[in-house]
Amino acid sequence: MEEISIGLLGLGTVGSGVVKIIENHQDKLIHQIGCPVKIKRILVKDLNKERLVHVERTLLTTNPAEILDDPDIDIIIEVMGGIEETKIYLKQALLNRKNIVTANKDLMALHGAELLTIASENSCDLFYEASVAGGIPILRSLVDGLASDRITKMMGIVNGTTNFILTKMTKYGSDYEEVLKEAQSLGYAEADPTADVEGLDAARKMTILSTLGFSMKIDLDDVLVKGITGVTKSDLTYGKQLGYIMKLIGMAHREGEKVEISVQPTLMAETHPLASVQDEFNAVYVYGEAVGETMFYGPGAGSMPTATAVVSDLVGVMKNMRLGVTGKSAVTPQFKKQIKEPSEMFSKYFLRLHVKDEVGVFAEITSIFSEQHISFEKILQLPLKDKGLAEVVLVTHQASLQNYEDSLVKVRDLQAVQSIESSYRVEGSANR
Amino acid sequence: MEEISIGLLGLGTVGSGVVKIIENHQDKLIHQIGCPVKIKRILVKDLNKERLVHVERTLLTTNPAEILDDPDIDIIIEVMGGIEETKIYLKQALLNRKNIVTANKDLMALHGAELLTIASENSCDLFYEASVAGGIPILRSLVDGLASDRITKMMGIVNGTTNFILTKMTKYGSDYEEVLKEAQSLGYAEADPTADVEGLDAARKMTILSTLGFSMKIDLDDVLVKGITGVTKSDLTYGKQLGYIMKLIGMAHREGEKVEISVQPTLMAETHPLASVQDEFNAVYVYGEAVGETMFYGPGAGSMPTATAVVSDLVGVMKNMRLGVTGKSAVTPQFKKQIKEPSEMFSKYFLRLHVKDEVGVFAEITSIFSEQHISFEKILQLPLKDKGLAEVVLVTHQASLQNYEDSLVKVRDLQAVQSIESSYRVEGSANR
Repeated sequence: MEEISIGLLGLGTVGSGVVKIIENHQDKLIHQIGCPVKIKRILVKDLNKERLVHVERTLLTTNPAEILDDPDIDIIIEVMGGIEETKIYLKQALLNRKNIVTANKDLMALHGAELLTIASENSCDLFYEASVAGGIPILRSLVDGLASDRITKMMGIVNGTTNFILTKMTKYGSDYEEVLKEAQSLGYAEADPTADVEGLDAARKMTILSTLGFSMKIDLDDVLVKGITGVTKSDLTYGKQLGYIMKLIGMAHREGEKVEISVQPTLMAETHPLASVQDEFNAVYVYGEAVGETMFYGPGAGSMPTATAVVSDLVGVMKNMRLGVTGKSAVTPQFKKQIKEPSEMFSKYFLRLHVKDEVGVFAEITSIFSEQHISFEKILQLPLKDKGLAEVVLVTHQASLQNYEDSLVKVRDLQAVQSIESSYRVEGSANR
Repeated sequence: MEEISIGLLGLGTVGSGVVKIIENHQDKLIHQIGCPVKIKRILVKDLNKERLVHVERTLLTTNPAEILDDPDIDIIIEVMGGIEETKIYLKQALLNRKNIVTANKDLMALHGAELLTIASENSCDLFYEASVAGGIPILRSLVDGLASDRITKMMGIVNGTTNFILTKMTKYGSDYEEVLKEAQSLGYAEADPTADVEGLDAARKMTILSTLGFSMKIDLDDVLVKGITGVTKSDLTYGKQLGYIMKLIGMAHREGEKVEISVQPTLMAETHPLASVQDEFNAVYVYGEAVGETMFYGPGAGSMPTATAVVSDLVGVMKNMRLGVTGKSAVTPQFKKQIKEPSEMFSKYFLRLHVKDEVGVFAEITSIFSEQHISFEKILQLPLKDKGLAEVVLVTHQASLQNYEDSLVKVRDLQAVQSIESSYRVEGSANR
């Protein structure tokens, strides 16, 4: 092999970054791989559009077949986005025995398992580091660095928009709607923020992370998802008072074949490293049997971080090509999965209620939880300004989700309980 | 190549971990490399000692030549520790064209540059991920993940013993001596803790990290080192009050060819991710031009984390062997270095003084700093219980070390200044 040829699908900000890095680091790349690498062809929608990087006009094409069916092209880099059409292109490329590097999270969360199987059948690599938390070399670490370890739990802040919003709400005591508007004006949130604030984007990333970390075929439907649109100033304030910081946490936990995966607003003990991940930053906390606890922190997105991750994957694929071991990365799911029942999911919970400020109400509530074997780590009761009501804030000890939810149903039925204001998962123990 | 043969130097806790991982993950290893790997011979001091892992008695030898000069052995894994004798062995191995994986921080900090040059001349790999912060894949990330980026600054908590001590002092308001004893009884600190508490261990790790991260030949002597033995409860308390947490920070900063490397107790803004790294954990914060800010967090030591890192390096070396690119890793220093002068080193500083509680003293002090163009971000002045003295705590804005030290000399000479109690570097801005 005298030279490795690449076909690039897409020449937006990430694609331009990839072109720049490959040009600027040609020497480093040759050192690492043992042969030169060049971009042979680039798929674009518009041949005449102004580009962020200088490329020979002759490299550009609007016809995917000129890349997908070119026998000289060894590796396809996909940075065009989209799902269904893109999937067709990548399938075609794999059937033509081309290795693939993609930054496409939506595609990998939905069709990753299928594409990885096709890749494996055709002895091709399909690498997708850049699809999760662009700037953090987390997938590489899961596969390489922790290759000789067994991962039991992952917790991640994997969406920059929601972390930005929750950070500002926590810091300045602002309302959700107010901060969302600020995030939109700064470009941290999209005009339609649904995929971010409802937790779907994070769920897609957790699907990819847990599939790889646990070596199981995890589907998007396996993830319990709750967004941050219902999080209020009061919840943040009480959380802080008790030593907890609100974060949108993606959590994946395995015990043998049994797994539990969720994305939900979670009160993290302020001493936990994830609690100090601020603004638009991302971080993934990994528990390995041999290594113990590690955390990877960095920018979750951005074109240069993502392009850097794409090129790192490219180097990995090229090494494997030259080793003759493409399609053998240990990413094909090895284990069966079984999603846990609510009676098998254990956690601590934060609960905020409005109750009538009367003698005996508190005893009624705690006795319902006692019957379900749930006890409390922290209790706050404060009179509300008017209405003869009191606000009750509870943090439970470990309890099964089943028992906790059964208790909530009974608590809601109590005559003295005005409303269940909020309920969150709690991670770790605060010092206060 | 039908099989890769390994010679192991040392069979203590890390060595035993390596043997276990290679046995238990043989399938995974074959998948990644494309051929089997076996341990051919193990150097030990005592053939009859009981081992943590079962190995064939015939594999053991007390004669290093049986490993170093065996033409069938491709890779040496060094987990025996020690400096001068070990260096002789590794040189011999490199001259015999054997690749090396080592977990030996002291050796690499002192003789790393020389050994790496010999490795390069003999087209051999010399990998040493496990020598720095065992459980954190930081060197791999510096070389691989960030290969296409330029690193400008690194800050690390790279010594578990001192972080344990400072964490306990901060949390419980305990004295240094008290916590040191606790750390010793728990096995977190050695009977002679000098190398840890005086910052030497951290300085060795920063030497290795900055050599690699900046691609410059950094020597141990280039590192300004100050330990934690002088840190008092008062400093921690005032720090906390102002929004800062005391950490022993290894810092390496480069601007072009000019570098500044230090290990010293530093007040970190409590919002900085490094401020929340607790107990014996380690973390390295990296600033890359393209990627931005990333952080790697994990256990700094421990036999299984270290063994895991050794095996990861082993996989890297074996891949390079099969690619025919050993000895070409971009670890040979490429750039010249120039250590910054004190007039070129900028930082914020925390200063605590005891002064006579008289009119005009404070003005005298501030005017000295003003003459050196140093202004203050925070000022506290409190009467001391007796003696007619007051305690003054100052946090400066950015200042050159030269100007700051010149000011201190003049402040110390003031008739009204009783003593300079403490002085620390400050990183980041606290919110309070």
